[in-house]
Amino acid sequence: MIHNFNAGPSILPKEVFEEASKSILNFNDTGLSILELGHRTSIFEAVLEEARLLVKELMQLNDDKHVLFLHGGASTQFFQVPMNLLNEHETGAYLDCGVWGIKAIKEARLFGNVEVIASSKDRSYTYIPKDYIIPAQAKYFHYTTNNTIEGTELFNIPQTNIPLVADMSSDILSHQMDFNRFGLIYAGAQKNIGAAGVNLVILDKYMLKGIERKLPSMMDYRLHIENGSMLNTPPVFAIYVCLLTLRWLKKQGGVAGIEKINREKAALLYKTLDAHPVFRPTVALEDRSRMNVVFVMDDAEKEKEFQALCKKENMVGVKGHRSVGGFRVSLYNALPLESVKAMTGLMEDFARH
Amino acid sequence: MIHNFNAGPSILPKEVFEEASKSILNFNDTGLSILELGHRTSIFEAVLEEARLLVKELMQLNDDKHVLFLHGGASTQFFQVPMNLLNEHETGAYLDCGVWGIKAIKEARLFGNVEVIASSKDRSYTYIPKDYIIPAQAKYFHYTTNNTIEGTELFNIPQTNIPLVADMSSDILSHQMDFNRFGLIYAGAQKNIGAAGVNLVILDKYMLKGIERKLPSMMDYRLHIENGSMLNTPPVFAIYVCLLTLRWLKKQGGVAGIEKINREKAALLYKTLDAHPVFRPTVALEDRSRMNVVFVMDDAEKEKEFQALCKKENMVGVKGHRSVGGFRVSLYNALPLESVKAMTGLMEDFARH
Repeated sequence: MIHNFNAGPSILPKEVFEEASKSILNFNDTGLSILELGHRTSIFEAVLEEARLLVKELMQLNDDKHVLFLHGGASTQFFQVPMNLLNEHETGAYLDCGVWGIKAIKEARLFGNVEVIASSKDRSYTYIPKDYIIPAQAKYFHYTTNNTIEGTELFNIPQTNIPLVADMSSDILSHQMDFNRFGLIYAGAQKNIGAAGVNLVILDKYMLKGIERKLPSMMDYRLHIENGSMLNTPPVFAIYVCLLTLRWLKKQGGVAGIEKINREKAALLYKTLDAHPVFRPTVALEDRSRMNVVFVMDDAEKEKEFQALCKKENMVGVKGHRSVGGFRVSLYNALPLESVKAMTGLMEDFARH
Repeated sequence: MIHNFNAGPSILPKEVFEEASKSILNFNDTGLSILELGHRTSIFEAVLEEARLLVKELMQLNDDKHVLFLHGGASTQFFQVPMNLLNEHETGAYLDCGVWGIKAIKEARLFGNVEVIASSKDRSYTYIPKDYIIPAQAKYFHYTTNNTIEGTELFNIPQTNIPLVADMSSDILSHQMDFNRFGLIYAGAQKNIGAAGVNLVILDKYMLKGIERKLPSMMDYRLHIENGSMLNTPPVFAIYVCLLTLRWLKKQGGVAGIEKINREKAALLYKTLDAHPVFRPTVALEDRSRMNVVFVMDDAEKEKEFQALCKKENMVGVKGHRSVGGFRVSLYNALPLESVKAMTGLMEDFARH
């Protein structure tokens, strides 16, 4: 058995692969492949609508929220968000907690003022800043809920009256939150929602008032809302894989159900790491991500040995991001507990020798 | 047997479906699904590289051409092209031959001057204007090689010293052309290249000089070139389906081989339409598309009858676009000659009764 700890694109449920594979040959007994279906057919419209409704149900969204499936990954949202929300003379407040936040900040500067209100750069992004003041005149406050590369996660929603905007690419649907507190949420699909090639964007219409800029049609959220994510040919198959993954999530007891397993997976892995000093988790205790567990070893030779051992035991995707080094073990929704147990077993063996 | 005449997303070769279906369960004997592969693995890098090289080979591109696979469909290129090529005080020359050209023109106006140098609006876009002068001071000349909705096609490359930019979404790789004559070519994949969810963009670096505008990273062709289409997580599966389709095309004898069959398919269909006055092709003889054959009937009752007959005989996707009405029969590369024969057989039967 292969244990897939990839940081994204990453493991999806086995039944999603099986169903997707079948639908490429014959979708819902239409005799046609999902890849050759016109996007304006009632068959695909039903796929899109079910996916949209499942997002609303699983996230318990109120009726003011619009659910969009858009082209591009979160990197496209880094600029599409300020392009739609920020006039040139207005200010967006940003939290700087690592690579993805930095990129979001860089793109936002093209469209308005950016105020970086706190940063964990001083300690190599190994923690989440806690004491900061969100300026009352800011148009919105943007943060990354989970830092895939650095392995930190922000579990509590910041207290503020400013509209919240969050990049939830790597922990969306992994634990319960009041998603209605956000003015805009975006997430590349390729971790907890589906395969690479589509963006989930959830937004409240009140966010879209007062923009002075003329927007290219494909960048204009208002047009995507009016056209129900069908302004142009959507990424049909990627949306279909989202639907399959969302259906699977519902069967796991939804977000509450998966949170229970995710907590168990992360607790087991961190407990094992903490018990064996050969491994050194890099992140502050209270900010440890339940999705991406990052650790190093103080001995470079031992790191190589453990890498080789993982490879031998079919554990893929465990190499740390080049900016951090060491290891990163990703525990997204679809990763089974048994894969974590296999990994902790290996760690214990390794620590004993 | 189902005959799929969809205008896009549209039919792809059977062996592409079979191979894609297998790879979702187990890609190249890795034991992993193509959907859960990290995009920075050597396995996916090999997919991307082979796809890129096949495009260069099949289109006989010279070494100055860069081949990119980008997020979004042609609609994204409508604005990405002028955003990258046109300064505010500069002029882009555009040909207006229908719905897609109009959209491209609309987006370009956001970034610079647009000069529409000819239009076939006067006769409902049923022909391609021939006598026009491309202004020598224009930065580029943009046109749509095939008008999917109106059923016109521009086979000859316009004579000009201005750099050519073409939207080839619906006829790319369907017939031989000197693709090196173009400064920039773009095409949504979902007709002749693969499935929906990725854009093929081919451009010459000389096109990218002198832009004064600051570009969002994801919109900047220069960054995509530097990063080899891996500036962010690319649409992995959509690119893989392109690779499979390009491999298939090579086995058909490449562009020259498929052109022969495409000519045969279109000739047979138009011949049948012309032989039976109940059908009325809408497009001027010399501008008839070989990809999208558009026709109407003068009798609304008969149209309904023929629609019903097509449905009964498992011929899907033949309804004309709402802006034109009647019928549209799409004959993309992957549509077998036997589907055209089945359609012409049906037409002859229908005309006789």
